[in-house]
Amino acid sequence: MDLHAEMEQIGQRARAAADGLRSMTRAVKDAALIEIAKRLRASHDVLRAENAKDLAAGREKGLSTAMLDRLELTPKRIDAMAEGLEVVAGLPDPVGEIVNQTIRPNGLRIAQVRQPIGVVGIIYESRPNVTADAAGLCLKSGNACILRGGSEAIHSNVAIAKVFIDGATAAGAPADAVQMISTTDRAAVGEMLKMDRFIDVIVPRGGKGLISRILDESRIPVVAHLDGVCHTYVHSDADLAMAKAISLNAKLQRPGVCNAMETLLVHKDVAKQFLPDVAKALAEGGCELRGCLRTCALINCQPATEEDWTTEYLDKILSIRIVDSLAEAIDHINHYGSHHSDAIVTEGYSAAEAFLDAVDSAAVYVNASTRFTDGFEFGLGAEIGISTNKLHCRGPMALKELTTVKYVVRGAGQIRE
Amino acid sequence: MDLHAEMEQIGQRARAAADGLRSMTRAVKDAALIEIAKRLRASHDVLRAENAKDLAAGREKGLSTAMLDRLELTPKRIDAMAEGLEVVAGLPDPVGEIVNQTIRPNGLRIAQVRQPIGVVGIIYESRPNVTADAAGLCLKSGNACILRGGSEAIHSNVAIAKVFIDGATAAGAPADAVQMISTTDRAAVGEMLKMDRFIDVIVPRGGKGLISRILDESRIPVVAHLDGVCHTYVHSDADLAMAKAISLNAKLQRPGVCNAMETLLVHKDVAKQFLPDVAKALAEGGCELRGCLRTCALINCQPATEEDWTTEYLDKILSIRIVDSLAEAIDHINHYGSHHSDAIVTEGYSAAEAFLDAVDSAAVYVNASTRFTDGFEFGLGAEIGISTNKLHCRGPMALKELTTVKYVVRGAGQIRE
Repeated sequence: MDLHAEMEQIGQRARAAADGLRSMTRAVKDAALIEIAKRLRASHDVLRAENAKDLAAGREKGLSTAMLDRLELTPKRIDAMAEGLEVVAGLPDPVGEIVNQTIRPNGLRIAQVRQPIGVVGIIYESRPNVTADAAGLCLKSGNACILRGGSEAIHSNVAIAKVFIDGATAAGAPADAVQMISTTDRAAVGEMLKMDRFIDVIVPRGGKGLISRILDESRIPVVAHLDGVCHTYVHSDADLAMAKAISLNAKLQRPGVCNAMETLLVHKDVAKQFLPDVAKALAEGGCELRGCLRTCALINCQPATEEDWTTEYLDKILSIRIVDSLAEAIDHINHYGSHHSDAIVTEGYSAAEAFLDAVDSAAVYVNASTRFTDGFEFGLGAEIGISTNKLHCRGPMALKELTTVKYVVRGAGQIRE
Repeated sequence: MDLHAEMEQIGQRARAAADGLRSMTRAVKDAALIEIAKRLRASHDVLRAENAKDLAAGREKGLSTAMLDRLELTPKRIDAMAEGLEVVAGLPDPVGEIVNQTIRPNGLRIAQVRQPIGVVGIIYESRPNVTADAAGLCLKSGNACILRGGSEAIHSNVAIAKVFIDGATAAGAPADAVQMISTTDRAAVGEMLKMDRFIDVIVPRGGKGLISRILDESRIPVVAHLDGVCHTYVHSDADLAMAKAISLNAKLQRPGVCNAMETLLVHKDVAKQFLPDVAKALAEGGCELRGCLRTCALINCQPATEEDWTTEYLDKILSIRIVDSLAEAIDHINHYGSHHSDAIVTEGYSAAEAFLDAVDSAAVYVNASTRFTDGFEFGLGAEIGISTNKLHCRGPMALKELTTVKYVVRGAGQIRE
């Protein structure tokens, strides 16, 4: 069978499974998640054996140590996948929530009710644990999913998916609730992106190249997880000890993630007092500094180029700029940033409110580290990613964001005049 | 200047205007809408003179009478545009609504707050009143918009946009809050669809060909308004007088719109009693009937082909099918329908609930006409269209659906452990 026909069949099966999942009770979904967790814990040997094939192939292909590390399924990581599913089982089911209800003058009762989206296509790279994490969130929210992982993790992904599917069906879920694309043919992604008859949304997890290709080719709505060029702005009236603690945390607590700070903006009135102290602490933390001309005059750093202001380093590198005003800070963030997470440190009421209103980002902060932009930290219990879309959902994409809202209208024979 | 550069400049201006609109108060926005309404009422002469150019060109090109009718700006239609803007001025401002707020264990106060989306691109055909209607909804919801109307209405659209922009700026809105693309070059649409740096969402209004092209080419999220293949299902226990009234209303009250019924499904147990009576009334209303084989055995009609079940006639034509069960009706609707609006007529509690749960449509009804799927009828005050997307919004797209929700996080120095 050719790839196109094979993919169409996967799509048809997913659509049929979605029809079954739509009205599946929470009890069945939670029992399935618990069963899958149990089986993952009991499958260390087979999962590690399959993972070893990917690791061997990766070494042969010359993958970097960092990539091999991400690829590895350690016993701890396998147990973490299982625990993640148990946590999701404990979360409220978003399906059925009545978002709004009104009674119209003609007596029509109009409610908006949360429903599963239907079929979710997930395209991801590297870490094989995404297989269980993403499939678990889809199952809990009543969505069928089609998974397409990276070729470097194919054996691991197929093995995890098999344990998942076996456990889910044993608990009464449809067999096609989760399907893993087992070919590593890149054309399969192209086929997926045209299957708008069968797939309702594409959630990509991966590098800029992958996401840009998906945005170019997809006929299906995409909830993108693009880069995080996050800022901390230290206003003239900031508590400088707080500003230092927040800056160090936002940059160094985990530099390789999307909600880490990439640019520090400092008001000119406090730059002289603040920057040398924080630069020293950052440098001691191993951080390379790149500054605007005024910054370079105050501290020891490389000059920043125009490109630095738009770069997501995902590393111990920080660009620093001194600004003349709150308005200049806001303009910098809206112009150069990626509209992900941005913070102001200030003791001033008006400055805080103006920043929160004017900065056009998924999450805006006063006096806290941008590192909190995360489904767990926001109390959502889990997340499939951080959306940089403005449509559908902005910020952490969790169970609620994996649903849609339909109008349910109850009448007594009303017709339109 | 070449088209690409020209479109980029339009995009940049829209983005800058959006930054100003984001924090514009309701008072200014409402005053602008009232001022524009006043000016539209005072501009009958110029609007009708520009419209006459389009009508003359349309006649020369051989446009159908129906298309020329849609194109015409009658005095009544000009006043209706003005009145529409006054209605929108009276609606609540969606911006600033707190959708949700929690306090986390670490004291972070996390709110989700409605914000304008930013820049809305609207691509539409034919009716020039869309220019004022769409721009008014965008202005009220704090969005900048870039309008691209059909070439056949170019003089009318440019004239309406001029009155709109003059009125808006007189009341204090940014001059680039509304921009009309004045070239009729089709390549301008292609340029728009790649401008994801400047445009946040594309809202297309038009025929299937236009929307399909947009879905193919757009890098920008699209809230599509596709076809309405709407069903009414008459269950075995229906009140047949009610079923008849609903069926006639759903088919004939206004056959040319997306929420009109295209297929009538009837349970076999009541087909013999119900169909001859309703078929007679439909035929008297000028409706052509196409039935399944069992239907053709009961009433005078043409045999329906497979294609009929997926066709949006937008005309006095109805396909009719007799089904053996509720489950068969649901399967038919989910398989052949367009997931727009579908109704069941029943006196049975379980049948009603099963239908509402299982039918995967933007609006599902018990005992009412599908013709109610409409922003005004649902109490939203206005609409820019009916979304057949599952993402972002489903059903009528009104002011709230022209917003996004951002996280606003207030801290007291919290950092992540």
